[in-house]
Amino acid sequence: MRIEVCHSPELIHLFDLSGKIAVVTDILRATSCMVAGIGSGAEQIVPVAQKEEVNPYKEKGFVTAGERGGEKIEGFDIGNSPFEHMEIAQKGKSVVMTTTNGTVAITKSAVEAKQVIIGAFLNISSVVQYLKESGKDIVIVCSGWKGMFSMEDTLFAGALVDRLESVAEIVDDAALSSMSLYRAVSGDLLGYMQNASHAKRLSGLKAVKDLEYCMTKDEFDVIPVLKDGALVKM
Amino acid sequence: MRIEVCHSPELIHLFDLSGKIAVVTDILRATSCMVAGIGSGAEQIVPVAQKEEVNPYKEKGFVTAGERGGEKIEGFDIGNSPFEHMEIAQKGKSVVMTTTNGTVAITKSAVEAKQVIIGAFLNISSVVQYLKESGKDIVIVCSGWKGMFSMEDTLFAGALVDRLESVAEIVDDAALSSMSLYRAVSGDLLGYMQNASHAKRLSGLKAVKDLEYCMTKDEFDVIPVLKDGALVKM
Repeated sequence: MRIEVCHSPELIHLFDLSGKIAVVTDILRATSCMVAGIGSGAEQIVPVAQKEEVNPYKEKGFVTAGERGGEKIEGFDIGNSPFEHMEIAQKGKSVVMTTTNGTVAITKSAVEAKQVIIGAFLNISSVVQYLKESGKDIVIVCSGWKGMFSMEDTLFAGALVDRLESVAEIVDDAALSSMSLYRAVSGDLLGYMQNASHAKRLSGLKAVKDLEYCMTKDEFDVIPVLKDGALVKM
Repeated sequence: MRIEVCHSPELIHLFDLSGKIAVVTDILRATSCMVAGIGSGAEQIVPVAQKEEVNPYKEKGFVTAGERGGEKIEGFDIGNSPFEHMEIAQKGKSVVMTTTNGTVAITKSAVEAKQVIIGAFLNISSVVQYLKESGKDIVIVCSGWKGMFSMEDTLFAGALVDRLESVAEIVDDAALSSMSLYRAVSGDLLGYMQNASHAKRLSGLKAVKDLEYCMTKDEFDVIPVLKDGALVKM
C-alpha cells in the first residue's frame, strides 16, 4: 500500500493512477459540498468541467450547482456553499455541478484511476477506514486554486497521510511534507487557515461560516464515489 | 515587496514573473554546484536545457558538466557533485552545464523574469541580503524532480521566506506552507532530509557527502546571476 500526493491537476500527468484509488479533494468548497450533499441524501451529483455541460441535465430536472472564482454562476440554482447543498439534498434531488477547480480534478483523475472517491474533512474518518480496508495504492489529488498549490487541500492530504502512515509507504516528497505540515499546525488548523490565500479571498459572514464548516471533521460517514460519471453514495 | 513560491517548472506558466526577481533553486544538486563553482572562481557557467546544446561550447574549450537522473552524462567532463565543480573552478574555467531539472528551471524563468539569480543553502545569507536591498517582488522557482514537488527545494524556499517575512508580503499558499514546514523541521534539517525521496535515491558515500554539503549554509558569499545566457558572479 503506497501513498502519493498530487498538489495540482496541472501535475496529474506526472502520476501513474492506473490500478490506484484517487482521493480527490477540494476542501474550499467542491468536495466538502459533495460530501455534505450525498451525506444529506442527494441521490447523485454529476461533476462536469465546463458550465455549458450542465444543460442536458438541467433539462432532465437536475439542480444546477456551480461557481467560478468563488462566486455562484449566474442562472444556476445554487453555488458552492455546503449549506446550500445540504438543503437541496434533503429533498433527495439529483445535482449537476461545475466548479473552478474540484470538478476538473475529478474528471482528470477519472481518466486513469481504478476508482475515484471524494474526500473532505467532513468525511475524513470514513475515507481513512475505507482506504485501510481496500489495501490499494492511493493518490490524493488536490484540486488547488486555478492550478496553484492550495493550503487547505494540502492540509487535508497531510491529515490523510498522517492517519495512513502506519499502514502505507509514503512514496513522494509531496506526501511526506504534507504530513509534516499538518502535524506542525494541527493544534490550531482553523487559526492557521486564516492566513492562507483562500481564506483571505473569502469575504462576508456566510463565507467565513462555510470555511469553518469545511474544516470540521466527521460530520458525515459517507463516501461519494464516481460511478458511470456520477457521484453516488458508496 | 511580495514573495511567491513556484514548486515546479511545470507550474511556472501560472506565475507572472515580469519585473520580478526569479530565485532559481535546485539544491540537489544543480544550483549548489553553480554557487560552489562561481564561488570557487569559475569564470562563467552556461546553463543549457538539452545535452546536445553543450557541443558548440565544448569546441570553444568549455568544461562540460551534466547529469541525467542523477548520473553523470557519458562523455561529459564532470557530473553534478559540488566538489567536482569546486575543483574545476579553481582553474578559472568556463563551464557549460545541463541537468535533469535545474537548468530547465533557469531557462524557463529567464523568458519573463527581470533578473534570474541562483540560490542554494550554500549562499543563502547573500541571497537574502541582496533581495532585501533590491526591494523587488520575488518568485522562488523550485526545480523539483522531473516536474514533481521536491523536499529539498521546498525547504530552501521556506528558509528564504522565513528570513524575508519581516519585510515581504507572503502572496501564495506555497510560500506560506514552505515557511511553516521549514520552521517545523529546521531543528534537524539534515535528519529530516534523510526521509525525503531524493536522499533515498542517492547511494554511495560520495552522494551522501554531496547531500550533507548541499544542506550546509553560507559556504560562499557570491550570487550567480544570469547575464546574456551565462551565469556569472554578481
